Amino acid sequence: MDDSMYTNYPPGLSPAQQEYLVTATKDWAIQNGLTVRPNPAMLPEGADPNRVLATNAPVTLFPSPFPKVCFEEARALQTVYNELYAAITCNEEWLGKIIEDLVDVDDFVANLWKTHLAVQKEGYVQNLSLGLYRSDYMAHVTPNNAPALKQVEFNTISSSFGGLSALVRSLHTELLTSPPGSPISYPPHPLLQSGVPPENTAVETLSGGLAAAHKAYGPSRSTPDLPLCVLFIVQEGERNVFDHYALSKRLTQFYKIPVFRLASSKILDQTTVSNSNPSRPLIYHPPHSPESAFEVTTVYLRAYYSPDEYKSERDWEARLHMERSGAIKCPSVLNQLAGCKKIQQVLAEPTGPDHLSSFLGNVDPAIVARLRETFAPQYDLSTTGQGRELALSPETAMKHVLKPQREGGGNNIYKSEIPDFLRSMPESDWKGWVLMELINPAANAQNIALRNDGEVLRGSVISELGVYGTILWDKTGKISHNEEGGWLLRTKGKEVNEGGVAAGFSSLDSVLLY
Amino acid sequence: MDDSMYTNYPPGLSPAQQEYLVTATKDWAIQNGLTVRPNPAMLPEGADPNRVLATNAPVTLFPSPFPKVCFEEARALQTVYNELYAAITCNEEWLGKIIEDLVDVDDFVANLWKTHLAVQKEGYVQNLSLGLYRSDYMAHVTPNNAPALKQVEFNTISSSFGGLSALVRSLHTELLTSPPGSPISYPPHPLLQSGVPPENTAVETLSGGLAAAHKAYGPSRSTPDLPLCVLFIVQEGERNVFDHYALSKRLTQFYKIPVFRLASSKILDQTTVSNSNPSRPLIYHPPHSPESAFEVTTVYLRAYYSPDEYKSERDWEARLHMERSGAIKCPSVLNQLAGCKKIQQVLAEPTGPDHLSSFLGNVDPAIVARLRETFAPQYDLSTTGQGRELALSPETAMKHVLKPQREGGGNNIYKSEIPDFLRSMPESDWKGWVLMELINPAANAQNIALRNDGEVLRGSVISELGVYGTILWDKTGKISHNEEGGWLLRTKGKEVNEGGVAAGFSSLDSVLLY
Repeated sequence: MDDSMYTNYPPGLSPAQQEYLVTATKDWAIQNGLTVRPNPAMLPEGADPNRVLATNAPVTLFPSPFPKVCFEEARALQTVYNELYAAITCNEEWLGKIIEDLVDVDDFVANLWKTHLAVQKEGYVQNLSLGLYRSDYMAHVTPNNAPALKQVEFNTISSSFGGLSALVRSLHTELLTSPPGSPISYPPHPLLQSGVPPENTAVETLSGGLAAAHKAYGPSRSTPDLPLCVLFIVQEGERNVFDHYALSKRLTQFYKIPVFRLASSKILDQTTVSNSNPSRPLIYHPPHSPESAFEVTTVYLRAYYSPDEYKSERDWEARLHMERSGAIKCPSVLNQLAGCKKIQQVLAEPTGPDHLSSFLGNVDPAIVARLRETFAPQYDLSTTGQGRELALSPETAMKHVLKPQREGGGNNIYKSEIPDFLRSMPESDWKGWVLMELINPAANAQNIALRNDGEVLRGSVISELGVYGTILWDKTGKISHNEEGGWLLRTKGKEVNEGGVAAGFSSLDSVLLY
Repeated sequence: MDDSMYTNYPPGLSPAQQEYLVTATKDWAIQNGLTVRPNPAMLPEGADPNRVLATNAPVTLFPSPFPKVCFEEARALQTVYNELYAAITCNEEWLGKIIEDLVDVDDFVANLWKTHLAVQKEGYVQNLSLGLYRSDYMAHVTPNNAPALKQVEFNTISSSFGGLSALVRSLHTELLTSPPGSPISYPPHPLLQSGVPPENTAVETLSGGLAAAHKAYGPSRSTPDLPLCVLFIVQEGERNVFDHYALSKRLTQFYKIPVFRLASSKILDQTTVSNSNPSRPLIYHPPHSPESAFEVTTVYLRAYYSPDEYKSERDWEARLHMERSGAIKCPSVLNQLAGCKKIQQVLAEPTGPDHLSSFLGNVDPAIVARLRETFAPQYDLSTTGQGRELALSPETAMKHVLKPQREGGGNNIYKSEIPDFLRSMPESDWKGWVLMELINPAANAQNIALRNDGEVLRGSVISELGVYGTILWDKTGKISHNEEGGWLLRTKGKEVNEGGVAAGFSSLDSVLLY
């Protein structure tokens, strides 16, 4: 990858230029719903008792250059990735073997697995499963300077920012082209005159997936029939609500599908599953209309993805309550488990059985090979593989990152710190960790971010591209909807302060392809 | 008017219903740009140093009932009103006679008039004038209970809330119809099942007027040609910016017209008028792009409407600078003067010359009569007319309000307080006041407002309907664009606290016609 692309980018800004861009961005964000509720840390105690205030989502002032070949490859592979994760979810035996091995080092995985086993014992009543996925990548700079697409992670639950990222693309497009006919919002720069970010259909794609599930559910299974709805399960006090609303607005206005939002803590209060009905329909009872009831076709989880959200047994009860119901889950417990880092590692292990080809038996082997190319090599730390040696040798450790399998379970360990870190814990815990070869991003990338408190930060950055996809399948593996569409660029400040804590920013961004 | 319409409206709300409506409204407002920047009083000092926060505009939770016959009459008369105010502005002699009489009691009017005289002396170089108007009314309950449309005021400058009022109509429409197929956002009530508020094309109408002026300006008058733009003149620290942005977005995206915003305090720094060019084009020099220059076709004033905005001679210089330029003014100084309360009073004086018929010579007399019907009787306090007697007699004073001619010049005086108030000032100042017969609104109207700090207030209300119109004409009176479209309902709390200060709210609302 020709790194010179980044050397004079973004162009310098005079104070008047920066003021113009910051004001235009702040105001555009509020006018168009590119917003978040403010972080409590941003506001003095008691400053917004009724929670009415909003602010711009953190965004970059400029779109970031991104290699076109990587962007297109990520899009081209998305429906294959969708299919892969559906196939993994269908293969309970294969999945279960890996998961059961994690149960004693990861109690979150253990509880999810227990939830699945409980429903399996009773018998699932819903054969359909919906995935709303985001596959995250970096543009890796290979030793010969060619850009290569490398996957960072694959999200099978609560894939976020689809609603807001489409807006960031509109914001940057407007800045690039305004005023019409004589664009001067940005200072002149060849890259900024080269075009606009590609179309971003994340909202259409994600809501299209939910609509497909809603339709596939079929008629009400209640007697008498109830009106049908999609239910968004959300976190109490969620700040990123406008990202959700972008999807529910489309479902309501375009598809005419009723959507309700329900905090995870209220699932057991406001939904019921009738055990006398063998279809076990999930019924939502809106507290603002006590005489109404809606049958839930599709439960869309924007909560319950992280261990810290399960504060008590009641949360696991609520999860089980939904899982055993007749609603289509997005995602099912099994599909959530398929997204754990350990699975990604098993798929990406450079040696050993060719799992990819087994799962993608119907796919052109050339395409399977391209998908495999997106993996950075990953290893477990068992005595049989290479991982242990690569992690413990100071020289090879330098090229790796050690990631905890457990979600929300602490930070990654980098390079020279890996050997000592591993030696400080009992070997029996090593299976909770995955070793991954480091991805090498463009060294000179820079951007300017507008934080959601209005602070403006300029610095070196690393960008991650996410591509959205959605798939609906049944437990026999039959796929009835498989779409790709929409993307996210998330750009993070690279700088760390003296205490070693990231002092920078994480912002929503868009791509200028080159 | 059958007041029973109002007696059980809006329906009562359980706590869960109110919470649902408030949350839905707050979130919808932020998602859709129905927003304002927060009042400093709402936030502790220093809580938002970068001015990033926004909140919902104050809105009613329910639409308000409004008589269909009044709504339709207001719309039907708008283009005639447009024509009337264009004709008044063209008749400098008639206008001047009234204005010159105010000069010694109203220094704001005096300074505007001086500005006009200065440009007149030098010679106007722009024959076109643009009006973006809002005519404000109340539904008056006549003694026989029929609803009658009565005008409160006619705004010829900075007619606001067109951008936001269209959004309130969308908000209420969505609440009335959601979820699709089984609407339950509101509790059941016959009026809420009767339909949705009528279409609101305020944004299209107002931006359409600006676009018509931009087009009528013709080619650049600079050598060499410059790109053309519309310039919004705004107040520093304006909180109602998203109302403006609704119009500029439409101008930019639909009409592809460059729009810039310029604080009134920076007019003299960032615009120039070349005296060597006989067309005196107004040139805008964007500080964020020093090598660029745009020729302003149309100056749209969202500032300089109130005396307190002219802080020094420099503001009057800036106003003169724009007025003498070749740009089309929205409005011109003369058109602003045509909107003063004294003019409205002269038109509405029940006895004396028939000014209306003179100004509207080409209009069907039956329509002129309908327009006259919208006037509440208004009087000056001269020795020759009836006004003085009506104001000083305690009995007749009870049916009137005394309004200061001067904008921003203190509050209205009501009913029994009028005689003593007048006697407390020298008779020479009486000509600065206008006596108006009180309009009698529906007594039982109620609504619930969500303030922009999130407080919820329920109470008796008075609503004012505004209808938007736009007209482009030249100094010979030839009209090239005359449109009506879009409306505003503004609903105010009627309660006053013990100190006599309005404790209630003023909110954006929409209409349910009956």
